[in-house]
Amino acid sequence: MSDAPASSSSSASASSSSSRPAGPSEISGADLSDALEALRTQVPLVQCLTNIVVAGWSANVLLAAGAAPAMVDNPREAGVLGGVAGGVLVNLGTPYEETVEAMYAAARAARAGRRPWVLDPVAAGALPWRTEHAVALLDEQPTVVRGNASEVLALTGGAGGKGVDSTDSPESVLEAAQGLAERLGCVVAVSGAVDHVTDGRRLVRVHNGHEWLTKVTGVGCSLGALVAGYAAVADPLVAAAAATAHLTVAADAAAEIASGPGSFAVALLDQLERVTPEMLSERVRLS
Amino acid sequence: MSDAPASSSSSASASSSSSRPAGPSEISGADLSDALEALRTQVPLVQCLTNIVVAGWSANVLLAAGAAPAMVDNPREAGVLGGVAGGVLVNLGTPYEETVEAMYAAARAARAGRRPWVLDPVAAGALPWRTEHAVALLDEQPTVVRGNASEVLALTGGAGGKGVDSTDSPESVLEAAQGLAERLGCVVAVSGAVDHVTDGRRLVRVHNGHEWLTKVTGVGCSLGALVAGYAAVADPLVAAAAATAHLTVAADAAAEIASGPGSFAVALLDQLERVTPEMLSERVRLS
Amino acid sequence: MSDAPASSSSSASASSSSSRPAGPSEISGADLSDALEALRTQVPLVQCLTNIVVAGWSANVLLAAGAAPAMVDNPREAGVLGGVAGGVLVNLGTPYEETVEAMYAAARAARAGRRPWVLDPVAAGALPWRTEHAVALLDEQPTVVRGNASEVLALTGGAGGKGVDSTDSPESVLEAAQGLAERLGCVVAVSGAVDHVTDGRRLVRVHNGHEWLTKVTGVGCSLGALVAGYAAVADPLVAAAAATAHLTVAADAAAEIASGPGSFAVALLDQLERVTPEMLSERVRLS
Repeated sequence: MSDAPASSSSSASASSSSSRPAGPSEISGADLSDALEALRTQVPLVQCLTNIVVAGWSANVLLAAGAAPAMVDNPREAGVLGGVAGGVLVNLGTPYEETVEAMYAAARAARAGRRPWVLDPVAAGALPWRTEHAVALLDEQPTVVRGNASEVLALTGGAGGKGVDSTDSPESVLEAAQGLAERLGCVVAVSGAVDHVTDGRRLVRVHNGHEWLTKVTGVGCSLGALVAGYAAVADPLVAAAAATAHLTVAADAAAEIASGPGSFAVALLDQLERVTPEMLSERVRLS
Repeated sequence: MSDAPASSSSSASASSSSSRPAGPSEISGADLSDALEALRTQVPLVQCLTNIVVAGWSANVLLAAGAAPAMVDNPREAGVLGGVAGGVLVNLGTPYEETVEAMYAAARAARAGRRPWVLDPVAAGALPWRTEHAVALLDEQPTVVRGNASEVLALTGGAGGKGVDSTDSPESVLEAAQGLAERLGCVVAVSGAVDHVTDGRRLVRVHNGHEWLTKVTGVGCSLGALVAGYAAVADPLVAAAAATAHLTVAADAAAEIASGPGSFAVALLDQLERVTPEMLSERVRLS
Repeated sequence: MSDAPASSSSSASASSSSSRPAGPSEISGADLSDALEALRTQVPLVQCLTNIVVAGWSANVLLAAGAAPAMVDNPREAGVLGGVAGGVLVNLGTPYEETVEAMYAAARAARAGRRPWVLDPVAAGALPWRTEHAVALLDEQPTVVRGNASEVLALTGGAGGKGVDSTDSPESVLEAAQGLAERLGCVVAVSGAVDHVTDGRRLVRVHNGHEWLTKVTGVGCSLGALVAGYAAVADPLVAAAAATAHLTVAADAAAEIASGPGSFAVALLDQLERVTPEMLSERVRLS
């Protein structure tokens, strides 16, 4: 739950372990600003089945960014909304019998209704029960999988991280992420100091962000929710990149006026609302 | 969960569809300041059975305003506290089997113990299971029903809104709200750009508030909790109006110093504590 | 959930009802700064089984202070992590069938794996079901029991408080706290205007803190989480005192720049990160 989409403002060079050496980014700042424009115009309804730690924070991130949250996570209603929501987030941060059942219902409904849905396999690999469910939920064909490096690796059979924190870097798991994306026909977004987004073939790296993102609980979780919102208005690769860029560009601005993790979180919400399509394309650092 | 009690500081004229054209407000600013004075003196214990998204925020709103929250929502204890609490809130934002059972227990205990209780039928009309429960809970005779226009309409058999957001205006459902209040012998508080509070016969409109209230999750939900607190120290119509006024007058002040939805939420808590009985009667705009 | 570790910056004299008149503090500021140094170096993983009201806040407190939260509270995983976490918190704020089962699993695993674990018996004495569980959980030998005076008294068979608020002072229950600590071989931390920490033989009083701590929900709950973090890196008495000192010294600094309970909570997170080992030993007021 404390995983963050980016933990440093410094640029990282391309991973040497990548099977596909990166050139210039496969998508442009203009793609991202178009996506933000669409988000603000359409205000998509985002159904979140997420954890008790970050539910309020995630709803506030969605509202500030420009989407409409609906935290519907019981089995009797999750499937009703899943088929008609703009996008759906399934986050395994604090799974219970009842909410896990709802997650399957929502994922199935989203798939059947051709709605985009995002899987955030929080702490997969570190804890057995949720790892099983994370892997099983892949059968419902998520549109985007978002996690830290250890979580993404766990979905491909690798060992997990330390609790909710990653013990791997996005660069080191890039090959696994690309393989997973190809196998599932989805987008995989790996959060870290440099965020990596791939559909198996294309790769987008986002270099924005600040270390305080790792000191606010639920930033990574709220990124998953925001990806679901963007996926309602843009193609999955652009959606994952735009959500990451929106959040980390806002974080750059928030860090300039904050005095610590508390005021940073508050400023982050303010800045999420203030980022314009123009600012997004100007300030994002892609590769 | 993102429904807000007021989304604009502009005044709205009386609805032409109202069956009872409004004259001057049926209650005065002095009634509201007396209620706030009583809240601060008595610090009523408010039992909240609310959703996972806003539980922390609602507790902080109660504390800042001057009440004492107790978030007791399991079936084994909800009825124990419900009969002795100052007021009880039942909010259907994220219902589960266990918490719904607790809601009935708390509502029954409140009714039996003659404690005021507030029903907040979040997303009623939009989702089937909770709509059934919202309607069934009416049998336990809530003291106040608080919701947005779509939710209130759903309790009278009308169609619901879009997720948790209202697709109707308070003015357009006033007749339904008045009918519901008369039928149940309760107060109905309809949140919106202009908040409408009615006991079926009398009508109070509160014109304060700011659009940022719609960008902070749980403001409407926390208003329900605050109504339960005020209902412990004032009659139901005054309680619903005073809670609405307290929250929206604080919002007016918070909006003046905030830079966005994040800092607005923080300032709102500060201002909830700072509003004095005198400020409340001076700044509230009733009709 | 609204109980606070300290509600006044004024010093209180020793309780006359104490069976062991206090002299100078049994531990020093240097012990506390060493503990903070260790916390920042080791960044212990703290498993929290806590309530829905404060889960997000508690995670943010841990992150700001220097620990790594993992909110794992389902029965299938709680025991897996409990045996290997740096420390475990069991908080009874909003117990449900499933999470209570998880609490026993985590406590048993912590005991078996010789990991420190903290019991926070929220509202024990005031509500029957959780009181039974709080007492039963004592059989798993908590390392530290942290609560307000009424809660601690309830564990020894005394009457409880008003909801989650204490109706007793730490001084008035000191004898009961010392007896409980001796009987269980644990540390008991009693929060209040002056925080009292005892292992039955030794007594440490922390005089820092501010009244706004009682206006932010979950401060007491987050203190329990922080004690679990410190207990991973220091002996239990020092851990309970260091966590209390860290939180209340940060509160002193936060109160100087805050305008109300909302901005105080934000500043508290900032200051939790800013407190250095040197500041801690300089500013803490022990007796």
